[in-house]
Amino acid sequence: MASPYSIDLDKNAANFTPLSPLTFIERAASVYPERTAVIYGELRRNWADTYARCRRFASALRRRGVGDDDTVALMLPNLPAMVEAHFAIPMAGAVILGLNIRLDADMIAFQLKHGNVKVLFTDREFSATVRDAVAQLDDKPLIVDVDDPAYEDGEFIGELDYEAFLREGDPDFEWQLPNDEWRAISLGYTSGTTGDPKGVVTHHRGAYLNAVSNALGWNMDAFPVYLWTLPMFHCNGWCFPWTLAALNGTSVCLRAVRADAIFDAIKRHKVTNLCGAPIVLSLMANADDELKSGIEHQVNIMTAAAAPPPPILEAMARLNFKVTHAYGLTETYGPAVVCAWHDEWDELPITEQAEMKARQGVRYPMLEKLVVMDPETMHPVPRDGETIGEIMFRGNIVMKGYLKNPSATTRAFEGGYFHSGDLAVCHPDGYIEIRDRSKDVIISGGENISSIEVEAVLYRHPAVLEAAVVAMPDDKWGETPCAFLTLRDGTDVSEQDMIDYCRDNMARFKAPRKVVFGELPKTSTGKIQKFELRERAKQL
Amino acid sequence: MASPYSIDLDKNAANFTPLSPLTFIERAASVYPERTAVIYGELRRNWADTYARCRRFASALRRRGVGDDDTVALMLPNLPAMVEAHFAIPMAGAVILGLNIRLDADMIAFQLKHGNVKVLFTDREFSATVRDAVAQLDDKPLIVDVDDPAYEDGEFIGELDYEAFLREGDPDFEWQLPNDEWRAISLGYTSGTTGDPKGVVTHHRGAYLNAVSNALGWNMDAFPVYLWTLPMFHCNGWCFPWTLAALNGTSVCLRAVRADAIFDAIKRHKVTNLCGAPIVLSLMANADDELKSGIEHQVNIMTAAAAPPPPILEAMARLNFKVTHAYGLTETYGPAVVCAWHDEWDELPITEQAEMKARQGVRYPMLEKLVVMDPETMHPVPRDGETIGEIMFRGNIVMKGYLKNPSATTRAFEGGYFHSGDLAVCHPDGYIEIRDRSKDVIISGGENISSIEVEAVLYRHPAVLEAAVVAMPDDKWGETPCAFLTLRDGTDVSEQDMIDYCRDNMARFKAPRKVVFGELPKTSTGKIQKFELRERAKQL
Repeated sequence: MASPYSIDLDKNAANFTPLSPLTFIERAASVYPERTAVIYGELRRNWADTYARCRRFASALRRRGVGDDDTVALMLPNLPAMVEAHFAIPMAGAVILGLNIRLDADMIAFQLKHGNVKVLFTDREFSATVRDAVAQLDDKPLIVDVDDPAYEDGEFIGELDYEAFLREGDPDFEWQLPNDEWRAISLGYTSGTTGDPKGVVTHHRGAYLNAVSNALGWNMDAFPVYLWTLPMFHCNGWCFPWTLAALNGTSVCLRAVRADAIFDAIKRHKVTNLCGAPIVLSLMANADDELKSGIEHQVNIMTAAAAPPPPILEAMARLNFKVTHAYGLTETYGPAVVCAWHDEWDELPITEQAEMKARQGVRYPMLEKLVVMDPETMHPVPRDGETIGEIMFRGNIVMKGYLKNPSATTRAFEGGYFHSGDLAVCHPDGYIEIRDRSKDVIISGGENISSIEVEAVLYRHPAVLEAAVVAMPDDKWGETPCAFLTLRDGTDVSEQDMIDYCRDNMARFKAPRKVVFGELPKTSTGKIQKFELRERAKQL
Repeated sequence: MASPYSIDLDKNAANFTPLSPLTFIERAASVYPERTAVIYGELRRNWADTYARCRRFASALRRRGVGDDDTVALMLPNLPAMVEAHFAIPMAGAVILGLNIRLDADMIAFQLKHGNVKVLFTDREFSATVRDAVAQLDDKPLIVDVDDPAYEDGEFIGELDYEAFLREGDPDFEWQLPNDEWRAISLGYTSGTTGDPKGVVTHHRGAYLNAVSNALGWNMDAFPVYLWTLPMFHCNGWCFPWTLAALNGTSVCLRAVRADAIFDAIKRHKVTNLCGAPIVLSLMANADDELKSGIEHQVNIMTAAAAPPPPILEAMARLNFKVTHAYGLTETYGPAVVCAWHDEWDELPITEQAEMKARQGVRYPMLEKLVVMDPETMHPVPRDGETIGEIMFRGNIVMKGYLKNPSATTRAFEGGYFHSGDLAVCHPDGYIEIRDRSKDVIISGGENISSIEVEAVLYRHPAVLEAAVVAMPDDKWGETPCAFLTLRDGTDVSEQDMIDYCRDNMARFKAPRKVVFGELPKTSTGKIQKFELRERAKQL
């Protein structure tokens, strides 16, 4: 017999609404219409105006024939238009595609084609790339130029300008929530170190939940002032455009990540929160003292991609900047793991604090399960801080899957978990710590060598500024570690010095056989490009 | 042709988990196991222990044959067992029924029977009532006594004691999330001023979302210390047991709401948040100065059920207590509307601040739609602060419906909105303000008279401590207003004085024809029982 709790108690229009972050902007605009939503240079716009512009934008898309599940691409730095696009595109029922502005024309062309892009918003700085990319397409998208007065080079290549486009739309446009919270909200291509990039598809439900998870997981206050040092094209700015609407906060836009602009914004606008790769922190830590002086309030910084090293943390602590370490992937809407801090750790010496903070941590509030498992047996590894397994995710902030790539989707979700490809240990307190990307592990004579572990030793050498260790093919051992190092100015060490240093400080089989000095190749988000170093190592 | 965004991108175990507030306690216990979850008198329990006790509790329920969609009732004051029950019962797949401890045996019997209760946890204080109630049942529930050492009267009437019951369970019980987030989590009976009470059924999705909505809507910080001045039997303590798990906070339990106990807890445990009906605020405002002195930190208070009057707000402001006014119903999981504050209102004179704060406000972050409508036409009323309509809700924190009462459910959801039965106006800024319950409106000679409006005038009279105005049958006018007043000590006014005062201060047809002095009947949550006054007025 059916339970009385499920009889005549169905979903209806009154008691069920698809979850969508679009409800946040409607609320911000109606409850706090006068509060500042966006700052860019001298420009300030409140939530009422921003919402009206988003509705124009959505309406203009509709009038240009863009509808449900059409893809709209953005080749833009962190401009106000980028914030607006994060609401307007899904308001039109369409899907956001943020393009990495550092990519070349071939890669952009691939994404435009694979994503079947209908409209493309672009900035003059990238006109040449976009033109070359679009030239490769049979079905060309409508191109709209976003004219940033702060950038004067480059050509306009669009059919019209963004402001003219907005004028085509209705500021009172009656947009609709998606009919299903599982509907796609965004498409984002993984950097794809081998083969074609994969198109990660996320949905309204997950975007809503991770927007909230940012607020809870980072203990954000109401009315945050958020500085855009993280590219919005990167996993929808980790869902922060939506978090800011939920918290009635302010987006301080920033075209280029430079120390002077960052500190100027922090002082002028009393920035409370910012995110960025370690390169942003390092830029801030190494800035002139004059820039850094005169900040009276606490700034909360979330960083990901690599653990913040102790000297950077010390510099940040001196500035009264509070650094939170997070971790995630495009497949998890950005941050999905956070090194949740314990007050008692404040009492530890700074190096031990740095060790605690170097750990990726625990599940974000809206991620339901985070576990390090042996990918063969799908059993959790012991919580010993030593046994390496693969980080697996389960829950509502895991992507729908990869666009038009069922085999990759099936592989990614094998055994009912999302396989991150990142290798980690689990500490006794349940905090996880990344040891390596699966593909970065060096297998030498059957032994696994964590490249991160070798790098950590190298980083402790006073002459080393940056270090990356990759596998080098070896006839006898299969692979051996090869180190690429950037030295500090004024230091002078030889390859043999470094090899000897390593042999003295780690198991001998883990010590690099080869050391190469010079600058390291990096991605646009500041990650060292190990795949390129692996290619170089093959030639050695 | 189907969109590529919906092909091969289905839900699976990796990317979809039913929303449930139970995930919050699992996280609190694993991330902050040592943090204090519950304080009661000298007792302190951390999240690890609390979680283990909840798992025992759930496991013991299972072993006693309680399973999916069985109802488990609680006749308890705000004890630690009450916090645990809010996790353990749904962990067992069962449904929480919080009984109002002030009800009589007949009413309790009705709820136990209608809810088909399998297990009942009770406190000695209510043994007599519970015994009489259970005597009326053919199918008697298992009764478990919760032995609160702070209460020594009354008899134990259960088959066993709560701690013995917990010992039957497994602290490592592998509980399951519901297979569907639409599954019932709680049943709660509305006070039911006429006819049988209705059983409001809520679900895991809504409980999860309103728990989060409390955190965002009230701008709660991490690690709140929450004092239980609000009965947990009342709409599951407005979902705060779950909010506290989400924020890794502390529940300070309180058997009885007394000023000394409240201020003692605030000082000893540095309480950051508490909720309560206006009676709680009034109790605090009127407490001895000695009790009130020595509080250095800010205490955030959420109040609902009636607008906080200016003298109370002033008293609270002097204590550095920040009062937030909220509004909701059992049908909306507790608070669903909040008077979201604007910093600039801090500059207003205190009486104007009180006027702003008297408004119920705007939708809670996780409520999707709040609108004041003409219930006949289902059109929104103009935002003029004058036109009265009915408050209607739409969204994810609206109940599933009424248990075994499809006609009441259908009526409540007519036209795709939940009809609150509360009458309000909408101000130009979109904030709503309650004018009356539908049934409290007095219709005199075809004109609607808001009882609240008349009461507001009466409250301004220096002799009036409490006022309630209801309809009195009248042969000529249909109904006329009748006022029931409690006067301040040492004051002396006549019925005619009050009638004259009203005629001088409002439209003549709104002035009460009859004034009765004496104490006012109240519900357990401090609401004046107008239905009883209406009965009395009929006899006049």
